[in-house]
Amino acid sequence: MKQEGILIIISGPSGTGKSTIVKEFINRNNDVELSVSATTRKIRPGEQEGKNYFFLSKKDFTEKLKEESFLEYAEVYGNYYGTPRDFVDEKLKAGKNVLLEIDTEGALQIKDKFPQGVFIFIVPPSINELQRRINSRGTETEEEVERRLNSSLEEIKQLTHYDYVVMNDHISDAVQLIEAILKAEKVSVLRSGNYWLSTFTS
Amino acid sequence: MKQEGILIIISGPSGTGKSTIVKEFINRNNDVELSVSATTRKIRPGEQEGKNYFFLSKKDFTEKLKEESFLEYAEVYGNYYGTPRDFVDEKLKAGKNVLLEIDTEGALQIKDKFPQGVFIFIVPPSINELQRRINSRGTETEEEVERRLNSSLEEIKQLTHYDYVVMNDHISDAVQLIEAILKAEKVSVLRSGNYWLSTFTS
Repeated sequence: MKQEGILIIISGPSGTGKSTIVKEFINRNNDVELSVSATTRKIRPGEQEGKNYFFLSKKDFTEKLKEESFLEYAEVYGNYYGTPRDFVDEKLKAGKNVLLEIDTEGALQIKDKFPQGVFIFIVPPSINELQRRINSRGTETEEEVERRLNSSLEEIKQLTHYDYVVMNDHISDAVQLIEAILKAEKVSVLRSGNYWLSTFTS
Repeated sequence: MKQEGILIIISGPSGTGKSTIVKEFINRNNDVELSVSATTRKIRPGEQEGKNYFFLSKKDFTEKLKEESFLEYAEVYGNYYGTPRDFVDEKLKAGKNVLLEIDTEGALQIKDKFPQGVFIFIVPPSINELQRRINSRGTETEEEVERRLNSSLEEIKQLTHYDYVVMNDHISDAVQLIEAILKAEKVSVLRSGNYWLSTFTS
């Protein structure tokens, strides 16, 4: 059964370890690739075009923006960042799953344009644990920690827009849970129903 | 995280090996129990009340039917069979998952009354394999085999009403896939979102 890939979107407040989960998930699953963003910021030493980013001029980025070529975009410190829709589409058509780690704002833009994505929100086990993880950086004042915690708690309210909530207590459990979600989604009727109908009614 | 159990409904045409899958799935998962049906047919030697069936008089069954006490029911050769809603509800509230193997007609009745169930349809790998499995019984005439095959193909069209389609090529793969589905469903936002919202906004 040759099937189109799945776009997996992962969000979660800072202090949940989502980047570690994403890295581990990619390492363990050969059929999953990280999405590559486009950006207007200057290329840095050691970075590769098409690997770290697709580097675009502001003019090209703005043009592509008008053509609705991005699944989402944002401006950060005067530079644009965006997820190129054709890159994602090509990978999915080739049967690869694409993973995108992004903030809730970006995720909601994607959901609007690509509702068939699988939206996963990572949460810490508890408020205490979240506080402990933010504190453990040890580089911030009490006010900064408090501000960070509140901003994380605000972000968590957005989980209602996602499909799944994965608690990160142990990295390997969280990774295995995302693997189970991917496995289940592949055989959802929405994704595989037509294949089976045509198999048995031809 | 204390969570309500999930009602899993499994259907599929004869010749897909779904009973073997169900047996294996129950054996491997202590948190899953088979649903016990109510029936008006006479108890047979060796059967136990509340284990094989809940044995009811026709009068009691009809009364319960009026009270909407069944998630589904059917009449077979003059006897009634039904799935008692309170049995299922109690198990789910206690955090047990309940598994129900049932034909598509029963499944559709349940979906109407219990849409939050997880509806899984089992298919054989191909028409040829389905034919081979039906043939292999060796007890039927060519016409009977043909009739069975057509009835199975008709039944397969109902898969669009289900949530997932699981191919049974190897029993253990199919069982593991259903385990992944259950794992994923437990962390769906629909089932776990409110828990996490209340955890982080209290």
